[in-house]
Amino acid sequence: MHFASDNWAGAHPKIAENLNRHSDGFASAYGTSTLDRTVDETFNTIFEREVAVFFVGTGTAANSLAQAAIGKPGGVTFAHREAHVIDDEGGAPGFLSAGGRLQPVDGPTGRIDINNLKAAIKGFAPGNVHAGQPSGVSITQSTEIGTLYELSDIAAISALCKDNGLPLHMDGARFANALVTLGCTPADMTWRQGIDILSFGGTKNGCWCAEALVFMNPDQAKELPYIRKRSAQLFSKSRFVAAQFEAYFADGLWLELASHANGMARALSEQITASKKLKLAWEPRANEVFAIVSKDNIAGLQASGAIFYEWKPPHNEAKLITENETLIRLVTSFATTQEEVSRFGDLIA
Amino acid sequence: MHFASDNWAGAHPKIAENLNRHSDGFASAYGTSTLDRTVDETFNTIFEREVAVFFVGTGTAANSLAQAAIGKPGGVTFAHREAHVIDDEGGAPGFLSAGGRLQPVDGPTGRIDINNLKAAIKGFAPGNVHAGQPSGVSITQSTEIGTLYELSDIAAISALCKDNGLPLHMDGARFANALVTLGCTPADMTWRQGIDILSFGGTKNGCWCAEALVFMNPDQAKELPYIRKRSAQLFSKSRFVAAQFEAYFADGLWLELASHANGMARALSEQITASKKLKLAWEPRANEVFAIVSKDNIAGLQASGAIFYEWKPPHNEAKLITENETLIRLVTSFATTQEEVSRFGDLIA
Amino acid sequence: MHFASDNWAGAHPKIAENLNRHSDGFASAYGTSTLDRTVDETFNTIFEREVAVFFVGTGTAANSLAQAAIGKPGGVTFAHREAHVIDDEGGAPGFLSAGGRLQPVDGPTGRIDINNLKAAIKGFAPGNVHAGQPSGVSITQSTEIGTLYELSDIAAISALCKDNGLPLHMDGARFANALVTLGCTPADMTWRQGIDILSFGGTKNGCWCAEALVFMNPDQAKELPYIRKRSAQLFSKSRFVAAQFEAYFADGLWLELASHANGMARALSEQITASKKLKLAWEPRANEVFAIVSKDNIAGLQASGAIFYEWKPPHNEAKLITENETLIRLVTSFATTQEEVSRFGDLIA
Amino acid sequence: MHFASDNWAGAHPKIAENLNRHSDGFASAYGTSTLDRTVDETFNTIFEREVAVFFVGTGTAANSLAQAAIGKPGGVTFAHREAHVIDDEGGAPGFLSAGGRLQPVDGPTGRIDINNLKAAIKGFAPGNVHAGQPSGVSITQSTEIGTLYELSDIAAISALCKDNGLPLHMDGARFANALVTLGCTPADMTWRQGIDILSFGGTKNGCWCAEALVFMNPDQAKELPYIRKRSAQLFSKSRFVAAQFEAYFADGLWLELASHANGMARALSEQITASKKLKLAWEPRANEVFAIVSKDNIAGLQASGAIFYEWKPPHNEAKLITENETLIRLVTSFATTQEEVSRFGDLIA
Repeated sequence: MHFASDNWAGAHPKIAENLNRHSDGFASAYGTSTLDRTVDETFNTIFEREVAVFFVGTGTAANSLAQAAIGKPGGVTFAHREAHVIDDEGGAPGFLSAGGRLQPVDGPTGRIDINNLKAAIKGFAPGNVHAGQPSGVSITQSTEIGTLYELSDIAAISALCKDNGLPLHMDGARFANALVTLGCTPADMTWRQGIDILSFGGTKNGCWCAEALVFMNPDQAKELPYIRKRSAQLFSKSRFVAAQFEAYFADGLWLELASHANGMARALSEQITASKKLKLAWEPRANEVFAIVSKDNIAGLQASGAIFYEWKPPHNEAKLITENETLIRLVTSFATTQEEVSRFGDLIA
Repeated sequence: MHFASDNWAGAHPKIAENLNRHSDGFASAYGTSTLDRTVDETFNTIFEREVAVFFVGTGTAANSLAQAAIGKPGGVTFAHREAHVIDDEGGAPGFLSAGGRLQPVDGPTGRIDINNLKAAIKGFAPGNVHAGQPSGVSITQSTEIGTLYELSDIAAISALCKDNGLPLHMDGARFANALVTLGCTPADMTWRQGIDILSFGGTKNGCWCAEALVFMNPDQAKELPYIRKRSAQLFSKSRFVAAQFEAYFADGLWLELASHANGMARALSEQITASKKLKLAWEPRANEVFAIVSKDNIAGLQASGAIFYEWKPPHNEAKLITENETLIRLVTSFATTQEEVSRFGDLIA
Repeated sequence: MHFASDNWAGAHPKIAENLNRHSDGFASAYGTSTLDRTVDETFNTIFEREVAVFFVGTGTAANSLAQAAIGKPGGVTFAHREAHVIDDEGGAPGFLSAGGRLQPVDGPTGRIDINNLKAAIKGFAPGNVHAGQPSGVSITQSTEIGTLYELSDIAAISALCKDNGLPLHMDGARFANALVTLGCTPADMTWRQGIDILSFGGTKNGCWCAEALVFMNPDQAKELPYIRKRSAQLFSKSRFVAAQFEAYFADGLWLELASHANGMARALSEQITASKKLKLAWEPRANEVFAIVSKDNIAGLQASGAIFYEWKPPHNEAKLITENETLIRLVTSFATTQEEVSRFGDLIA
Repeated sequence: MHFASDNWAGAHPKIAENLNRHSDGFASAYGTSTLDRTVDETFNTIFEREVAVFFVGTGTAANSLAQAAIGKPGGVTFAHREAHVIDDEGGAPGFLSAGGRLQPVDGPTGRIDINNLKAAIKGFAPGNVHAGQPSGVSITQSTEIGTLYELSDIAAISALCKDNGLPLHMDGARFANALVTLGCTPADMTWRQGIDILSFGGTKNGCWCAEALVFMNPDQAKELPYIRKRSAQLFSKSRFVAAQFEAYFADGLWLELASHANGMARALSEQITASKKLKLAWEPRANEVFAIVSKDNIAGLQASGAIFYEWKPPHNEAKLITENETLIRLVTSFATTQEEVSRFGDLIA
């Protein structure tokens, strides 16, 4: 019962096979091959406009290079207080943006509260060099705790950003999972609501190593080729990423995989709701399920073969968990089976 | 006739297949899986000692993180004037080592001249903060122009480093190609001659994306896990690199592939020697062949399907090329065929 | 009535005169002159041990170079949520420490709460590269809001630091003001309680530009000469700083000036306590007085010639200020006169 | 006989006195005082246009912040091979510009050869991320070896810069010394020839600590306030710099001091020309005299009280010095007396 993380899965067979299929022959390096360009075109199609796409090696790299792209001297980017860019990337966003800072903004259910964001931006008076200057806003979709920003939420944050001349970045490590729940198009979930830069993750949804930084307006990406190179993120055999994305997008595989993962999460959450041992912490909207469990029950679950992480309760939701309880995170993926979910259901019944 | 670069090739079938084979199932992320550990052990075996191994995404990353590991405030690392770290990595070694500088040292045939190195180090008086302080030496094996340091060359540079308290780094983007020519063991070519840190490249020799930073003394790598993470080089599905290396090392595949590539280079060089149209610039020792050709002949070669780069003549060898001539670089790889080499031979006969 | 900031004052006559006195003649540059060394010795005497002293240009520089000195890859230093290093230095501590992060720790009256600090440190599990690693703790004495850490507070924080292998830094921009209130020696307020590194400020207390970074253990300062130079903080005519410090320390001038400033602050606070228009926000312990005033009264005070800043209420004290009120900060210095204080008293009577 | 460096002198009496004069009273901090603004206006007058002026603490800071201002990802700035920014600033220009590189360009007599510069720029093909991208050119006036660029030299370099879209920076640590020799105006020596950014040094010519970064086009300085703050170069009591500059410019003091220093250098050079013990290495144009002396004579000169540095022969001039000889540098300043020069003359007669 593997619910530790969607990055514990390997690669989907179709993606592995396509990588295999492209392994022979010669192709020009550093992202200039025919296959690279074909995949670039696919991104254009998917986003319904010409975008600028940059493959990088990790989600951390995508997020950090986004910060580097929007960075300003003394710059401060706002993100949710429990955002991955703040807590879980070893300082890479600051390091790779040459000293950019991230300022936490509070909000319930893993989402930035727009009033808090407004206040945070207002805290920086124009020209106050001591405080520094706002450089952007970053949101995570789906969020770190498996919830979602509705399209209208994104539009509202974006409007505030535009008012303040701030670019808006989306950390889309689990972009597809959010997309299939909202049932909208990639364009709808991004630039149509005012997203400027997207970290588009493929790794957690069935690729080996396929992350892309997507600029909705290619003009804003002029320095990115140099930013990527100086950060050692330009692959020589770039087509190994392109080949993964080719299969990922073919026949809507990526949406199918995300739907499957989300479906498994829903199934899990139903079993938790029905369970006497676990409580659902909040409604899952993507492929992460958070449950509250008595501390006494943790060891038993693990001994029975359930693999998951205990999770630090989010600041705003901490009150949901009593002293004798703990929060656990269960993540599903393309590789999660109904059988695993059912076994877990039996375990907690 | 693909001689543009060894990174225009794809992946060797055995490597691609092994990646495929490992694509299902679950494994813990971020380099902690059983397969990751198994491959770590293989590195220990190959280097005949316990080494500390860190997978990264690119050769530039390996070289840059090596600089970060040995970096000091005001630090200056010495490298050959035409070293990849100086000329071809978009400033990544300086950026990722937080301002480390690289100082070029001259020497013929792509190799640091030890007397020049001695003088360069001596240029930094202890305590002279204006100049900065030496932080290390980096050599490339095989070199940027397809030549080699003999073991005794490495030992001599290493002795000078030890006298000055400087760590010695080897950029081994084409490590295997050097190794099979010298006919020695990895331990012989590295720590037995005093190499401290190695950028171990697998990508150019048949992998998709498999680079490792190898510390001969694990004690010197204590900060590397954090250095790698802050540089966004820690892969979540790290086993996609491990799987490549597993196949790479199995049954000596890596040495076989390098031998093939070198053999193709030798065959090319023999044809060039026999040719009336091309002259061998200098004796190739690995998988890169440099030839001098009349400018008039370039277009014809390319029109006939030969793919290669014109190359800026190295400073010390520039006099070999007359005004009407140009230097070209021909690179072979595991994927180069005897047929391609023969066709090229016919072309220049 | 100048209460805007202690850095609105100029230089004390004795300090200005000493600078004048040293203006002729020749002396070796970059901190190597006889005068520089004499002042170094004075620091040793004052701190009752051999310390390593580095002059720098600004308090921000002292704080930032302290961060650089203790910095680690992925490093996180803990400071009070309203600390100057976090809020008011334009990102310099992070930039000059090559990506070091500062994590806010909560606590009332401008002081880190030790239980919150304990929890914050505990949040970083050893080896968790995603979170990063603790690199140190920084406290401000006197604090940003004119309060003090008692010696026992410092000792307690220091003990926690030692338990976790973390260096402890003190931002002493107003070191002398704290010292004269506590009535202890510099050694008592620093290394005897476990402070490792001190930003020793002279500027706010009567110098033009005299800040020093003081390492209680010179062995920990080995890289500082290079760190200072690469941050462009090494003055050529370093004796212009030394001359200020010489006069500053002569005959206890520095303590006299701080006592005067603190006395003026006490006098101010007494008048505020007696006032009907203002309320004392909390007890001042150094040379900064915070008062709560009706928003309606602000303009009147300013029109009458009182110069001060409105201040963002500290998070923990925000509840003291009602909707119709605002917080103001009044800072005294060596240059504040009894006459100014009395005039202000009349104004608010 | 103090010829070690112009930074071994103290401050000119008029400058020291003015600093003293401004030491009392209150003035708003961080460069916003009336005096700061008055001095800003003086810069406008001197440069015959509205310029943007930023005080910083050291020449290294001015040069480094100039690099930060023009920096680009993967950026490379060209400077003379023996430029101060390359050799003598402890890596600050790279560190404070977040990884910017400096590429040495060769040229005789301390000056960039324009053909070499042309070739160096051409070495960076547009879009070649591996090499990086040119970000600017920096020249030193007067040069590191006491020579000068003629106005036409500057104009020629500037034209090349404009052709390539590169900003042109002048390191004017000894700006005044060059100016009085050329007999032109500051505008003539800078923007009229195409200089974009100037490091304007006052320290070596009679100030304690007065350096300014001057942008000829204020629009290009928009980010400088934040760049300066994050580099810890914003002084709180900024008027201590302003007061120095006020006196420096009053009644043309700065030009007078530079003329004096240059005159002393000329006198020295005449005595060297007449000497049997020393040879003039090349014609001095400012306040630095380089002489060739037999190694046997060095100790005697020093024993007689002459203070100077032996100097590493510039690459292009190295052939002037035979094996038994060494190069020495003699620097004059506002504080050099005719008596000292005469004594030296007697010594070498």
